[in-house]
Amino acid sequence: MCPHAYIPYKPVNPKTRLSCVLSQEERETFARAMLADVVYAVRDVNCSPVVVGTELFDSEDIQITVSDADLNQTLNSLLPQTVGEILIVMADLPLADGASLKRVLATKKDMAIVPGRGGGTNVIYLKEPSRFHVDYYGTSFLKHVKIAEEAGLSYEVIDSFRLHTDIDEKEDLVELLIHGTGKSRAYLEELGFTLSMEKGRVGVERKNRQDAASL
Amino acid sequence: MCPHAYIPYKPVNPKTRLSCVLSQEERETFARAMLADVVYAVRDVNCSPVVVGTELFDSEDIQITVSDADLNQTLNSLLPQTVGEILIVMADLPLADGASLKRVLATKKDMAIVPGRGGGTNVIYLKEPSRFHVDYYGTSFLKHVKIAEEAGLSYEVIDSFRLHTDIDEKEDLVELLIHGTGKSRAYLEELGFTLSMEKGRVGVERKNRQDAASL
Repeated sequence: MCPHAYIPYKPVNPKTRLSCVLSQEERETFARAMLADVVYAVRDVNCSPVVVGTELFDSEDIQITVSDADLNQTLNSLLPQTVGEILIVMADLPLADGASLKRVLATKKDMAIVPGRGGGTNVIYLKEPSRFHVDYYGTSFLKHVKIAEEAGLSYEVIDSFRLHTDIDEKEDLVELLIHGTGKSRAYLEELGFTLSMEKGRVGVERKNRQDAASL
Repeated sequence: MCPHAYIPYKPVNPKTRLSCVLSQEERETFARAMLADVVYAVRDVNCSPVVVGTELFDSEDIQITVSDADLNQTLNSLLPQTVGEILIVMADLPLADGASLKRVLATKKDMAIVPGRGGGTNVIYLKEPSRFHVDYYGTSFLKHVKIAEEAGLSYEVIDSFRLHTDIDEKEDLVELLIHGTGKSRAYLEELGFTLSMEKGRVGVERKNRQDAASL
């Protein structure tokens, strides 16, 4: 079983592309709820969550690693020191569940990777972390595949829409309202978000929303 | 093994939301290339493709069913007559492959369903087609789950981003350029599409594009 799961997380002013529908405080609460959903899924496959961030935040029982460096520098300083296998899971994957993560951990290759929407990388699983380094941002999925190939690591791409769906924009909230079962979906509903039809397409609308000026 | 796969397909003026980057003729060629990719995947799991459309089109070796009715009416008139299990696969899933469809066909439930992005339904697999009816458009995934429950059918949601990714809009082309391996990806490249960075996000751009006025 996997001992640790690194979960990169930004507690302060996260998810700015959701500013059109959520205030900063709401985005921070929402990001924290998504983190809780990811932590729940990670624990469901017997991994220990280690939140990797630039700021400390109030945490009940999650191990936290804080660094001033950017995500790539932070993870690339951690990986060579990491003993045994490691899972790296983004914090904005509220549809993550035990079943999808089990498929990641079940790989027979040196590495498993789950692409995010738009070329990103949502999950990496490494049996020998010291042989790999990360390069997030942009088309990181293609970069990570290349890094694996150059390091002589075999890899498997895990085909999961639950792990593929990172929540960045208003339209992504549709997926959460349809397929979510955890705290972040509950928080959206608490705020008054519901599914709506916009020009024949499914969107979200927010009822009882505060005055836009106050957001 | 699955005998038939119904593939709803619109040969004339399809994918209008891609009009910003493709002319009508190009959209028709592109839709046909996506259909070819889906047909390839369907055959890879030993199913016989039956294209279900409103118009005849030039086809080499695909069985075609033509109806004047809309998609729901057409499929709902076919399902009661369908003997044995049936797969219903949308034609705009160029990332579909044998591995993902095998997971659909391997279900132990009465039905397997794959949600599309935005609440749609991309794939349905039915062991007893006469016990089900379809209701596409809008949040059809939620409607289909409800129809299954009301009909007393057990169902499994298949977690696949390859089958989840329907190509409707310009930003969806990113997924095809990153993960596609078939004819529709090749066609996009032939037209000059490449990945690009737009405000820190991955997009597509088209080189050597015709004058916009001619599209």
